[in-house]
Amino acid sequence: MKLEIDNYKIQPGDRVNISQIPCSYNGELTKEKAKKIFKSRIKDLKRLQELLYADHKKALLIVFQAMDAGGKDSTIRNVIGPLNPQGVHVHNFKAPTQEERDHDFLWRIHKAVPSRGYIGVFNRSHYEDVLIARVKNLAAPEIIEKRYSQINQFEEGLVEEGTRIIKFYLHISKAYQKERFLRRLNLPEKHWKFSEGDLAERQRWGEYQSAFNLALGRCSTAAAPWFVIPAETRWYRNLLVAEIICRQLEGMDLKYPETNIDPSKIVIPDY
Amino acid sequence: MKLEIDNYKIQPGDRVNISQIPCSYNGELTKEKAKKIFKSRIKDLKRLQELLYADHKKALLIVFQAMDAGGKDSTIRNVIGPLNPQGVHVHNFKAPTQEERDHDFLWRIHKAVPSRGYIGVFNRSHYEDVLIARVKNLAAPEIIEKRYSQINQFEEGLVEEGTRIIKFYLHISKAYQKERFLRRLNLPEKHWKFSEGDLAERQRWGEYQSAFNLALGRCSTAAAPWFVIPAETRWYRNLLVAEIICRQLEGMDLKYPETNIDPSKIVIPDY
Repeated sequence: MKLEIDNYKIQPGDRVNISQIPCSYNGELTKEKAKKIFKSRIKDLKRLQELLYADHKKALLIVFQAMDAGGKDSTIRNVIGPLNPQGVHVHNFKAPTQEERDHDFLWRIHKAVPSRGYIGVFNRSHYEDVLIARVKNLAAPEIIEKRYSQINQFEEGLVEEGTRIIKFYLHISKAYQKERFLRRLNLPEKHWKFSEGDLAERQRWGEYQSAFNLALGRCSTAAAPWFVIPAETRWYRNLLVAEIICRQLEGMDLKYPETNIDPSKIVIPDY
Repeated sequence: MKLEIDNYKIQPGDRVNISQIPCSYNGELTKEKAKKIFKSRIKDLKRLQELLYADHKKALLIVFQAMDAGGKDSTIRNVIGPLNPQGVHVHNFKAPTQEERDHDFLWRIHKAVPSRGYIGVFNRSHYEDVLIARVKNLAAPEIIEKRYSQINQFEEGLVEEGTRIIKFYLHISKAYQKERFLRRLNLPEKHWKFSEGDLAERQRWGEYQSAFNLALGRCSTAAAPWFVIPAETRWYRNLLVAEIICRQLEGMDLKYPETNIDPSKIVIPDY
């Protein structure tokens, strides 16, 4: 069974209307079968991660964006969690600090991109600057309008210098978000994750979806494509994200570096 | 079966001679039993990590030092690997850059300490500045002499501000190092990890051991103790490291933050 990952990719120039894209998986793959494939792809991922590190010529940047309760944390725990922690850095972008706000919006992002050999994961990203910034008027409209092409140029530059970029939008419905919020409220040890502010954001659901439509449509490029993941089917979400990352790494022509080591000529003295 | 972790702790003021400390485990715990306990402690560790994050008042810093092939990478992969990658940062300290060398030796270290809620892991650390620096005369002897108390004061300050510190020396013998080097040479895909420089370092084995004796003896404090791990028994090494980290977190009085959330009073509108 070959996953058709291109079905989930936003093609450059597409007009996007995410309300038309399903939030859950309804194909014929079963959960049991998917979990089996997932396990073997995680093995591949670990091997490819070591190869990326050994090769030390390229880096991989993975961006996650979603509405609240969309499953960013859970996806990162499930798909990125099994990797070698030495080779991966997860950056959680929160509301910018005063120092960050005193710079252009890409300043804090650029500082956090992965170096050669590493996988960088962004939990939220520079896309917040065209999402929440747009919905809540955190910058003038003409400033925000310019950001889409700034983002594309920034990402293209990274790619030209050897970083590969994959961007995931974890797609859920408003009804599903409610379900997940209720779950948090029913588990006392999850209360600290809940804030009344989440409900205020929920009221702007439609505005956020429009902002996502623009961001995904304008910023899915050949260099750095967006994938829309049906995230309500969590086992399929995990599999699909792992699969897309694997395919990316497999296509990067990674090699163990050549060495001149001739084991037969190396003597390791006992003392 | 309760692990006596204090047996592996260097007591403050001890004169240390690591050549008298075993590099392998010879107790009655079996590998099978140990793997079982390890698995359950990893579960505890994951739970405690979430609690540390939720509590958000303290941080944990874990330092690993060892001779080459001592197993730092493997220990980090096995014990830190299962944790949530969002809450842990592994820092790999290499030879300092020009900018780092233009600062005091603790400058780059301080920048990398974990923030509240997080676990920071140092693969090598400021201890290199009293280990390799001492063996290879990278600084004047009187400068290096002052570093031990600078380190103690620095670490004590971190502890006073809410960071907990555990330091592991993964203890192996010179014969075991040879065995591991030979293994690398016999596996072509591991050749890139081997450098002839490793053999030059090996020739200074005795000098390094003396430098470790000083570092462990002078810098094992109540605030930030050193543990010497018999690292040739890898399953025991993993278990012991996991156990010590668990005990540390268990003793930190971590709590989920109080919230005023009354689920019965929160209404989540559908639209």
